[in-house]
Amino acid sequence: MRYLDQAAIEHIAIGAAFLGTGGGGDPYIGKLMALSAIEKNGPVKLYSVDEVADEDFFIPAAMMGAPSVLIEKFPRGDEFVKVFQKLAQYLGKDKIAGTYPMEAGGVNSMIPIVVAAQLGLPLIDCDGMGRAFPELQMVTFHLDGISATPMAITDEKGNIGIFETIDNKWTERIARSATVEMGASSLVSLYPTTGAQIKQSGVHHIITLSEQIGEIIASKDQEVNDKLESLLTLVKGYELFQGKIVDVIRETKGGFNLGKMVLEGIDTYKADQMKVHFQNENLIAEKNEQVIAMTPDLICLVDFETLQPVTTESLKYGKRVRVIGLPAHKKWRTAKGIETAGPRYFGYDYEYTPIEEMVKKEEAEHV
Amino acid sequence: MRYLDQAAIEHIAIGAAFLGTGGGGDPYIGKLMALSAIEKNGPVKLYSVDEVADEDFFIPAAMMGAPSVLIEKFPRGDEFVKVFQKLAQYLGKDKIAGTYPMEAGGVNSMIPIVVAAQLGLPLIDCDGMGRAFPELQMVTFHLDGISATPMAITDEKGNIGIFETIDNKWTERIARSATVEMGASSLVSLYPTTGAQIKQSGVHHIITLSEQIGEIIASKDQEVNDKLESLLTLVKGYELFQGKIVDVIRETKGGFNLGKMVLEGIDTYKADQMKVHFQNENLIAEKNEQVIAMTPDLICLVDFETLQPVTTESLKYGKRVRVIGLPAHKKWRTAKGIETAGPRYFGYDYEYTPIEEMVKKEEAEHV
Repeated sequence: MRYLDQAAIEHIAIGAAFLGTGGGGDPYIGKLMALSAIEKNGPVKLYSVDEVADEDFFIPAAMMGAPSVLIEKFPRGDEFVKVFQKLAQYLGKDKIAGTYPMEAGGVNSMIPIVVAAQLGLPLIDCDGMGRAFPELQMVTFHLDGISATPMAITDEKGNIGIFETIDNKWTERIARSATVEMGASSLVSLYPTTGAQIKQSGVHHIITLSEQIGEIIASKDQEVNDKLESLLTLVKGYELFQGKIVDVIRETKGGFNLGKMVLEGIDTYKADQMKVHFQNENLIAEKNEQVIAMTPDLICLVDFETLQPVTTESLKYGKRVRVIGLPAHKKWRTAKGIETAGPRYFGYDYEYTPIEEMVKKEEAEHV
Repeated sequence: MRYLDQAAIEHIAIGAAFLGTGGGGDPYIGKLMALSAIEKNGPVKLYSVDEVADEDFFIPAAMMGAPSVLIEKFPRGDEFVKVFQKLAQYLGKDKIAGTYPMEAGGVNSMIPIVVAAQLGLPLIDCDGMGRAFPELQMVTFHLDGISATPMAITDEKGNIGIFETIDNKWTERIARSATVEMGASSLVSLYPTTGAQIKQSGVHHIITLSEQIGEIIASKDQEVNDKLESLLTLVKGYELFQGKIVDVIRETKGGFNLGKMVLEGIDTYKADQMKVHFQNENLIAEKNEQVIAMTPDLICLVDFETLQPVTTESLKYGKRVRVIGLPAHKKWRTAKGIETAGPRYFGYDYEYTPIEEMVKKEEAEHV
């Protein structure tokens, strides 16, 4: 167990936004929410998964919907606690032992800190993705057959819903339509889980990893190339591209930020072009019309100079970025993982190939 | 208190479909559901509103969505009880004293009979509209400030939702989007009410009135003109038109059956034309381009020969019908009633004028 101080929270927000692969919300907004919550309620305890009792009961808290909406629809702050408590009450659980994020992301890593601070609950060092994904069934608990429901949903106006669905795809469908009606974003608590389930099916250590990533990115002691090297070593990643955003096509549709961006290479990549397709999160990266990285592997955009993560809602013409690719957690690389969040699920007719192989193949072709 | 036998149920289904003004579901489907439920579980007791204790607690049950879908998506039968019990459980009420319909209509008058039969509960002789309307806030309880939520919703697959909304328009919005996602129809329990609230805000005696209407329509002892006269006397209605359907424009959109039909006059109406606009229910009737009846007053289509009610999903080219207009319940003729379900709410820019006045004016012009 350790306490999360202000610096830790700032680093977690940045690192989680990096792992959010474009989705999961803006880390600046997320950080403000969490810092304001600990300032008011005192620090939050972070427990590792090993420290959790098997029979204890945990509820995650998250934002659902198009992250871009959050900028205009800033949460009041009590919605997170409200939806969390509503689910606890519905489940008839007197004692909730803690909370944790559903996914990485600048906002979705911070919401559980707000809940933990406001309710004096521990935060557990795990999540259900190890990255961010756009749909509710794209969760490692789902891969292990755990139900997403009962779930609770609320909006900033105060409307509340509780769902029990026949499977997790129906959770996504019904919660998505409610989210769209609520104004394209909502707050949710779902996948209520025991300690044993967290140990078995969660992505462990993800908050600490986010913090370490954030520390590197925020560091003022290193040059950008050294920072990049430290970052790539930590996350076992690859720099896939350096470029300037020359086109962004997007729409907010069905509670998602959908689109595609085109990057024109700079420096060593001057002759090259990259396209990145996204649905809240970056899903497919094509270098010179050839796929170089694909979901469930992580495609992370960072600022060229500062390495600060770039979310899909903040893509701007002319912005200079680096594209970094990371292998997904091993749970995502199983048959069920690829069926759930691989390229074909999103409508891209590619056989999933691990990023390591694609990078190796591309290097071989260009020697 | 009296028992509802098979004949009573058949008559109620027909009469309620008449009062359903085109919506509320097909009376044949409704009747089958209710008869099968009483055959299996025994007869249902009907209590008048006067016989109800003020402090007792009641929950209505209804179908929501486009009635046309029901024909293909026949309910399994246990959904009604499931959604009813889910709401009772959520409300923490051990004892529900009875159920009643939300609206008139061939199916929506019968669902509470199914619930009453399956759970051995009394049925109360009232509803929340005295007719049918397409949206959840178009209920006399709403006019008196009673909340539609907590409400429960389910589909034939087994998905369940519970909503608590900030107002009844939000109930409509969120439940509608869930209904659309569930396949354009759902089962709902909402407006949980006490006996005192039913006495104050319900439309009393509506099941008995439906039965009396059904008895007249089903009668084999009278000629059609005599039956029509009896019917008009009972409901204080007007025959507005006799015609043949020559055009129907419709779509199923947002969980509604929307559209417009054109009738070409027959017999004494040979030189005339009528248009009827509907959204599940008939809303506006225009005779020779002049409005002759408008919501919240009732516009009922019946078969020309048999006087059997014609629902909006069964409109067919060439069908010969009579159009009957009825004054709405007095609660609908208040300022709040007209604001809630008058022509302007549905996008028709007419000042609401009671049907009696419009008929009188038209007769004066044509003498």
